Amino acid sequence: MEQTSKNIAIIGSGLVGSLLAIYLKKKGHAVTVFDRRPDIRTVHFSGRSINLAMSNRGWKSLEKVGLGDAIREIAIPLDKRAMHVNNKPVYFQKYGKEGEAIWSISRGVLNRRMIDLAENEGAVFRFNEKVWDVDLPEAKIFTGESEKSVWKEYQYDLIFGCDGAFSRVRHKMQRRSRFDYSQDFIDVGYKELTIPPNEDGTHKLDNNSFHIWPRGKFMLIAMPNIDGSFTCTLFLPFEGEVSFENITTTKEAKAFFKSYFPNVRKEIENLTEDFFKNPTSAMVTMKCYPWTYWNKVALVGDSAHAIVPFYGQGMNAGFEDIYVLDELMETYGDDWDSIFSAYQKSRKPNADAIAELSYRNFKEMSSKTADSKFLLQKKIEKHFASKHPDKWIPVYSRVTFSDRPYAEALAIGDEQERIMREVMELPNIEENWDSDLVAEKIISLLKTKKTT
Amino acid sequence: MEQTSKNIAIIGSGLVGSLLAIYLKKKGHAVTVFDRRPDIRTVHFSGRSINLAMSNRGWKSLEKVGLGDAIREIAIPLDKRAMHVNNKPVYFQKYGKEGEAIWSISRGVLNRRMIDLAENEGAVFRFNEKVWDVDLPEAKIFTGESEKSVWKEYQYDLIFGCDGAFSRVRHKMQRRSRFDYSQDFIDVGYKELTIPPNEDGTHKLDNNSFHIWPRGKFMLIAMPNIDGSFTCTLFLPFEGEVSFENITTTKEAKAFFKSYFPNVRKEIENLTEDFFKNPTSAMVTMKCYPWTYWNKVALVGDSAHAIVPFYGQGMNAGFEDIYVLDELMETYGDDWDSIFSAYQKSRKPNADAIAELSYRNFKEMSSKTADSKFLLQKKIEKHFASKHPDKWIPVYSRVTFSDRPYAEALAIGDEQERIMREVMELPNIEENWDSDLVAEKIISLLKTKKTT
Repeated sequence: MEQTSKNIAIIGSGLVGSLLAIYLKKKGHAVTVFDRRPDIRTVHFSGRSINLAMSNRGWKSLEKVGLGDAIREIAIPLDKRAMHVNNKPVYFQKYGKEGEAIWSISRGVLNRRMIDLAENEGAVFRFNEKVWDVDLPEAKIFTGESEKSVWKEYQYDLIFGCDGAFSRVRHKMQRRSRFDYSQDFIDVGYKELTIPPNEDGTHKLDNNSFHIWPRGKFMLIAMPNIDGSFTCTLFLPFEGEVSFENITTTKEAKAFFKSYFPNVRKEIENLTEDFFKNPTSAMVTMKCYPWTYWNKVALVGDSAHAIVPFYGQGMNAGFEDIYVLDELMETYGDDWDSIFSAYQKSRKPNADAIAELSYRNFKEMSSKTADSKFLLQKKIEKHFASKHPDKWIPVYSRVTFSDRPYAEALAIGDEQERIMREVMELPNIEENWDSDLVAEKIISLLKTKKTT
Repeated sequence: MEQTSKNIAIIGSGLVGSLLAIYLKKKGHAVTVFDRRPDIRTVHFSGRSINLAMSNRGWKSLEKVGLGDAIREIAIPLDKRAMHVNNKPVYFQKYGKEGEAIWSISRGVLNRRMIDLAENEGAVFRFNEKVWDVDLPEAKIFTGESEKSVWKEYQYDLIFGCDGAFSRVRHKMQRRSRFDYSQDFIDVGYKELTIPPNEDGTHKLDNNSFHIWPRGKFMLIAMPNIDGSFTCTLFLPFEGEVSFENITTTKEAKAFFKSYFPNVRKEIENLTEDFFKNPTSAMVTMKCYPWTYWNKVALVGDSAHAIVPFYGQGMNAGFEDIYVLDELMETYGDDWDSIFSAYQKSRKPNADAIAELSYRNFKEMSSKTADSKFLLQKKIEKHFASKHPDKWIPVYSRVTFSDRPYAEALAIGDEQERIMREVMELPNIEENWDSDLVAEKIISLLKTKKTT
């Protein structure tokens, strides 16, 4: 359905804000994007990003506005995990079927490209302009140098809050009655480190792998960049025996890497310098509801649903929000009440589901990777899925390589877990794990419906 | 232990703020209480309060600073519920053992008295002074006419945020990293109504009862005031078939009361006028952590843990916070780091427990009061408790008539629920509910420990 051109403000020029700008321009709207920070194309990156993994949902949203090829130019496909366990050779785990991959991409490089593309479409960017207040029913925004300076007032037809986990737009909605909100931090922080390219510009590690050095309660990961470098992220508890709190000197940092990451330590650039120069960042799950205010204001992406990064779905979920919004614009045309109402109703359960799945992955990584029963269960699931790919699609594939709702992936995952709990109770499961008996048991359980 | 006199600001002159002022004055501190609103002693009450029920924990905190008698003067003991079911005579349910009662008290009347008492102790009150910002590490507060006006700066040694569920002080803490926070509204709202005294000043209903008109998904309650009136509260869903949303005209309001509250309708003063004049208020469960900032700032009462009112414990929990703080001041003297750290560690699990219990009471009232199995279970519990008072203290009594931790009451309540689930599975329980067999079963289950 056609839409009447509206005058639209987007708050936040991050990935979601700039992709939304492109979508809205293609619908014929006037779009201004405000950002309190300077133009990311003019500044050095901040050293606090986790590299992104673009998967099915992200690509689908890019393809719809014809951006797939432009973004693939700056992305690298990863079809497997490379597991670096101390005193063992590296081993590889394929992510999915032949041809399935997640794509490593630098947040900064992607964001720069997206802003270029949005400008090409005609979106206007106003950088260094800080939004301090929003009049929700009037769709007005107020900007200025500081919270107490003289403010400039802008009136729009619609406002989209794409200003991230600590959104100012949401902040305004949050002070209203009957606005549900939660922010829960995990007790693990992260820090960015870098593995530089070889002298000839090639990658120092396999560049089609997502590298993981799992160490129980902490881990290091590395994802390749197109310039030959890797962006590494160290995930480590804030407090406790082995923790950020207990690494305060160069000597302690060196000892930590020597004990736990002896092989990768030498590859990391300016290890101890970066360790203390780069910030230790926190991770939060943020949920809220409603996401919209009348037909005037809507939250999109992290401002509506920030999640911990352990499923690699934060950006993908935000891009999928935009895809869904676009479908609803096609259905409802100028009826923005219906667009916003259907948008939040459709997306909220899926945002909650990917938040839950991401949090579970965090708990799993920090508590279960050393649990032999858990590892056996994963082995059985994998074995069964390879023999019966039509009967058992792993949750990871449903989330990463499909566009079925996140909520469905979570529900089927819970059902699979129920089945596996029964399977793990079978006598001598340790010996019989790959037997026909076990496969038949799974098949029979798949036929029964969950009763409670 | 003695404490060095400190210069202390309390933000909020409500019940918790004024009682805390009294406690701190008695310890020899200089205390200034800020409130953005006018002095409640000079204004008409707002028509949006639910009357309070002072129970054991509240009294204990008042007694410690010698205020029990002064407050009992303005309170009325309620030793029972009076249940008003349509087409049935009123029936009464005793709250506890002989002599156990909750005390009805008007929030406004109590607040006025508490401020008088705090002033008598030497606390200074600064009304109509709005706190807009707090410098947490420096313990500075900034006040002014508006958020954008010129601000006045005050420096203190310590700041206590007693400014309620929508606390400005907490708001400042909340924008920091690693601050966990949630606010969850329930889908039921409330509205205050009044039953005036008889012409001779006596109460129109039994004045030692907490009156309840349960109607499934909604209900009316009434609590007596010392002036002969009752403060009534109508709890009703915001949306749905029978809801605030669907009562928008005088005619609809009259029809609603005629259908559901025919007997009380005529007693309520200015029924339809008040219905539309008084606001419809929302109810929220608010949790957060941490509650303190270094040795500088602490949240006390609703600003740290707002709960829904269905257990009558909001004020009691806030007063108990103060009691615990006072005990820790005696233990740690000038070591405010330890006082604040022990305070939040000790109180957080108990605040979470009473939040959970209050929310469960809400769910129970709105979904289970018509469930015959639930009612049978409650009857069995009551019967058993009356025969074996040493073996089965109901959760309500543990919360209301004891000062044992809320978390303990919740844990024992869960254990009782586990036992009753097994009891309800006994054959012919409907007929045998008061048999020795059932009592023996409960006793044997009480001896087993929870295994999972």
